[in-house]
Amino acid sequence: MFNPAIRALTAPPVAVVQNWIEQYSGGLGPLIDMSQAVPGYPPHPDLLERLTRYAADPASLGYGPIEGEDELREAYADHMSLRHGTRIVAGETLITSGCNQAFITAALTVASPGDEVLMMRPSYFNHEATLKMMGIKTSYIDADPSRGFIPDPEDIRTAITERTRALALVSPNNPTGAIYPAEVLEAIREICENSGIWLILDETYRDFLPGGATPHHLLDTGRYKGDWRDHLILLYSFSKAYCIPGHRLGAVTAGTGTIAEMAKVMDNIQICAPRAAQRAIAPMIEALTGWREENSRMIAARADVFRQVFENLDGWEIASLGAYFGYVRHPASSDSISVAENLVARTGVLTIPGGFFGQGQEAYLRFAFANADTEAISSLPDRLVTFQG
Amino acid sequence: MFNPAIRALTAPPVAVVQNWIEQYSGGLGPLIDMSQAVPGYPPHPDLLERLTRYAADPASLGYGPIEGEDELREAYADHMSLRHGTRIVAGETLITSGCNQAFITAALTVASPGDEVLMMRPSYFNHEATLKMMGIKTSYIDADPSRGFIPDPEDIRTAITERTRALALVSPNNPTGAIYPAEVLEAIREICENSGIWLILDETYRDFLPGGATPHHLLDTGRYKGDWRDHLILLYSFSKAYCIPGHRLGAVTAGTGTIAEMAKVMDNIQICAPRAAQRAIAPMIEALTGWREENSRMIAARADVFRQVFENLDGWEIASLGAYFGYVRHPASSDSISVAENLVARTGVLTIPGGFFGQGQEAYLRFAFANADTEAISSLPDRLVTFQG
Repeated sequence: MFNPAIRALTAPPVAVVQNWIEQYSGGLGPLIDMSQAVPGYPPHPDLLERLTRYAADPASLGYGPIEGEDELREAYADHMSLRHGTRIVAGETLITSGCNQAFITAALTVASPGDEVLMMRPSYFNHEATLKMMGIKTSYIDADPSRGFIPDPEDIRTAITERTRALALVSPNNPTGAIYPAEVLEAIREICENSGIWLILDETYRDFLPGGATPHHLLDTGRYKGDWRDHLILLYSFSKAYCIPGHRLGAVTAGTGTIAEMAKVMDNIQICAPRAAQRAIAPMIEALTGWREENSRMIAARADVFRQVFENLDGWEIASLGAYFGYVRHPASSDSISVAENLVARTGVLTIPGGFFGQGQEAYLRFAFANADTEAISSLPDRLVTFQG
Repeated sequence: MFNPAIRALTAPPVAVVQNWIEQYSGGLGPLIDMSQAVPGYPPHPDLLERLTRYAADPASLGYGPIEGEDELREAYADHMSLRHGTRIVAGETLITSGCNQAFITAALTVASPGDEVLMMRPSYFNHEATLKMMGIKTSYIDADPSRGFIPDPEDIRTAITERTRALALVSPNNPTGAIYPAEVLEAIREICENSGIWLILDETYRDFLPGGATPHHLLDTGRYKGDWRDHLILLYSFSKAYCIPGHRLGAVTAGTGTIAEMAKVMDNIQICAPRAAQRAIAPMIEALTGWREENSRMIAARADVFRQVFENLDGWEIASLGAYFGYVRHPASSDSISVAENLVARTGVLTIPGGFFGQGQEAYLRFAFANADTEAISSLPDRLVTFQG
């Protein structure tokens, strides 16, 4: 009756863990939801004002350009230009309805059923599920905890086969939080270029890089022999940094030829991203630079508290801690799904089990520490100290 | 470099025709845009007020349930129950970001790459392109103009093969406007049921059925031996009847097991549809019943004017005229794309060439007559009378 590739997918992970919440009696205080990445602070009031202003504006109501509103594409291109000290034009951007949509659009543009896309493991579950549901084969490189889950470029070189069409990376990483160093990304880029495969880099969490540093030089036109436009697709989400996932906005940076192919896919997936939010956010990218940096510092402070909490907690160990997530070894010997379910049932702390990020991850839980304020993070020991699985 | 199936797709048709507009000098008056279906009247003020109210509401900003907001699913289920004199529950609905997204989600849920989906020709171009980009084979039954482009169930029975997973229909039809009679849809349903294939029925234009009649009895549980939930998926768009395509909202009606599979696809495509518009529209489905019926009557009056206009226009002939579209034979012997391009360049009337709806359609242009008011429709003869191609 159904496509076997869809049948074989597990139920959406976030929905699965949210269904566990009702098992928690509330005895240890309010739920601390560190599962789905949702910043625990409100959007900027100026953005809220603009969302209200454009929601019923006549120019928001009709169909918009498939590639996105001109004003947002221009603002985003300017932002990327400034961020990377290079020149990105509006035609090198595409606005999508969130970053999952950016990923499926990118993946389908470069890979056919039966082709292979390479990714690191642990993997972001929606990337993996997206490829599987389209009949695109997935192949994994196990990230080494002793390297902080940072990829070894040589492992990538070895893993590329004749069927490989793309390498899909996430940095800052989901689930480990690991921030891939610029030089590692550059080495990987060169391998992709030389192998004739695409590098699809999901940068959903880049606004939470400590210190707001430039994450990489992949867009430097003078730095490499080839042109980044021939093998690089960058993905981004407005959901996290602007705290508006409910409005569903993401973005792509790629060469104009790639954008033209991706627009065909977008047209079939949903014609265009919702318009009012696009218009609302366009001038806010620049206007909220300071606000984003402030939030990034606040989240870095949460990371510090998170680290201290686990340093003093027997049986628990932070395996990796980065821009938004902590990837933590739990004290139990049972599988991660039971552990995460028991954890929320008994302590009211909701996490995502490592098992949802692929094979070999049963020892871990992903904590979206950035969701919670320092007070909530500081209260974790009281809840976790007696938990054994 | 790219997926050959994406390369092989033409550029998005609506964008292609919109690029022709600049060739029109304006000499015969303002552009009459009868290309993309966009109702030529504003949304109801109460809906606009609610869109404004919920745009920045805290409960609209976070991630929502994948299947859609509970209040909209319930309102939509109640609407379907009332419309069809049966009981549809919220769990039998799914909210998507427009009807193209409903279609890709449905198609991928029931068909894998290499499987076949059957459709009528002329075909809605996004349905065809969606299947092709996913490697799903398309197979066509040519609609017979002498039958008013209504499918002959026997043709469908004959066309089903071992590889066929679904029949995708659009009624009221895009591009022909043809309204498939209830008994034809019921005969087709029986064939699908007996053949073990899905019937995916896109009802985007159903609110413009003359008289607001119930379009079919496909959801009557007592009427057939089997259960509709085992072989029927209904698709709908809020874009047309509520005049808010820019907010991107569509809906699915299917069995709960089908909805659960479709939710996996939705999670990967975009997690959830935008939330504020979902909350805004929920109570409006019932509240605007009279308003929708009034608009439907207004559009029926436009259809009458449209018919009169072409009856008196030499060389032009209405091949089919229905809920929203007129499918018209043009007077030229050249291909439909040149004709449509020349038509807008010389007369300022924008249509979609028949060629975009598949092979054998070069003699036709699609007019979205419902876009234009009766005054604009009445002015068509002045523009078209001397046009020869």
